[in-house]
Amino acid sequence: MAMPPVRIDDPADPRIAGFVSIKERDLTGRQGRFIAEGTVVLRMLAAAHRAGRGIAAEAILLLENRLAGLADVLAEFPADLPVFVADGRVFDAIAGFNMHRGVLALGRRDQMPGRDALLAALAAESLALAACGLSNHDNMGALFRNAAAFGVDALLMDGSSCDPMYRKAIRVSVGSVLTLPFAREGTIAELIERLQAAGFALWGLSPRGETDIADIPPTPRTALLVGTEGEGLPDKILAAIRTARIRQRPGLDSLNVATAAAIALHQVARTNGRI
Amino acid sequence: MAMPPVRIDDPADPRIAGFVSIKERDLTGRQGRFIAEGTVVLRMLAAAHRAGRGIAAEAILLLENRLAGLADVLAEFPADLPVFVADGRVFDAIAGFNMHRGVLALGRRDQMPGRDALLAALAAESLALAACGLSNHDNMGALFRNAAAFGVDALLMDGSSCDPMYRKAIRVSVGSVLTLPFAREGTIAELIERLQAAGFALWGLSPRGETDIADIPPTPRTALLVGTEGEGLPDKILAAIRTARIRQRPGLDSLNVATAAAIALHQVARTNGRI
Repeated sequence: MAMPPVRIDDPADPRIAGFVSIKERDLTGRQGRFIAEGTVVLRMLAAAHRAGRGIAAEAILLLENRLAGLADVLAEFPADLPVFVADGRVFDAIAGFNMHRGVLALGRRDQMPGRDALLAALAAESLALAACGLSNHDNMGALFRNAAAFGVDALLMDGSSCDPMYRKAIRVSVGSVLTLPFAREGTIAELIERLQAAGFALWGLSPRGETDIADIPPTPRTALLVGTEGEGLPDKILAAIRTARIRQRPGLDSLNVATAAAIALHQVARTNGRI
Repeated sequence: MAMPPVRIDDPADPRIAGFVSIKERDLTGRQGRFIAEGTVVLRMLAAAHRAGRGIAAEAILLLENRLAGLADVLAEFPADLPVFVADGRVFDAIAGFNMHRGVLALGRRDQMPGRDALLAALAAESLALAACGLSNHDNMGALFRNAAAFGVDALLMDGSSCDPMYRKAIRVSVGSVLTLPFAREGTIAELIERLQAAGFALWGLSPRGETDIADIPPTPRTALLVGTEGEGLPDKILAAIRTARIRQRPGLDSLNVATAAAIALHQVARTNGRI
């Protein structure tokens, strides 16, 4: 159980400095700190903290009227975790905007395994999702949420993709960013080379893909690769690897990248008997 | 081709009154006017206007540096459509915020067929998507986008669902709201009754559904029903109709409603040979 709640009456109180103006401040990469929002994400943070693989909760800030309803979630945190409560006026003054949810946590992500260490640790039967040049935090969060739903073991991004530890991506992922192993480094060419070297059958997802996703054969290690929003995977990449498509009506615009990944992951997870 | 562009230098110019403070004003339902944003949606608006089924463009407002690149899209609009251009300062002062896209159109939705007329007009072989209590405009837009991708013939919502003609929903739908026939009225019980009376095999989508989506048999008329974000379909509804589930890993949270719909629509459209 986390510590007894401490009431905060001054938005400038140094004890809650980590929560100040979270909308304006980009906590990403700042000493590895991140912000978790909402009850479901708080629960995922507790799970990640207990798992002890590099994600730690540092403090919780609640709107005072949320406290009673969250007793069971708070019980999942360690006994020395500080919990602060504030009324609506003080809470909004701290956060810098009207935070309807009234549930915030400050977390820390310590040094996590890099791409190659993550790949080396995967089981003989694994499903990986790779992404290249993803620049939108909503899509990034949705990609994690969908990857978790279909049992992806690792999400691997090139270094040009945006940071999943950003508040909005964590929220949209419903906390999956905190529990699903991921790495974000290097070029897409390196990532493809590493996945292939690790024995992954790699399939680039594209409206122009050659193979219907339903015809991707089962393999112990399968990886799907998705590209930038809008543009998709570059032609050079599509020419170098096997490609798969989702049947759909011809039209001006293809599916959203996270939605396309969800449909393909669902299919591949079925084919491989993983769901 | 739309009319020669008229330059606007005064944000208070009455000719562009329909574009003022679009973020604050909820145009929804106000004399049936709506705002379309961005190049792709503008193109869909032109298509909808030409189709002449109740969607009409009234005016276009562009950032002046976007004009040259949009000549081909403007050519798709009728010759009497007013086009206004403004520099960045005036454009943002009109819109009320920094509109990076710099492409806006004001449209009008005239009286469209109601639910029953829409159902009566569907072909013998049809795919319908029904939604109950959808309250989030992003999800609504994504639902339309996914429905269009898999060839849904009509999207039918109960009256408690949010309005798809809202700017953000249109944008997220990538304009599909303007081209996909829809109706939003009545209760979900009525909608279920009407769909069944029209010979639709109706399947409620739920993590607790009885039938795997891959086992939904082909039928000339199939309808999928999705529920509120978070809560899903009420137990009372699930008990009254056939239900289907998407296989996934057990976890705290199910898929996003529009993502779940996409996966199920993809499967049902395949089963029925529609894609």
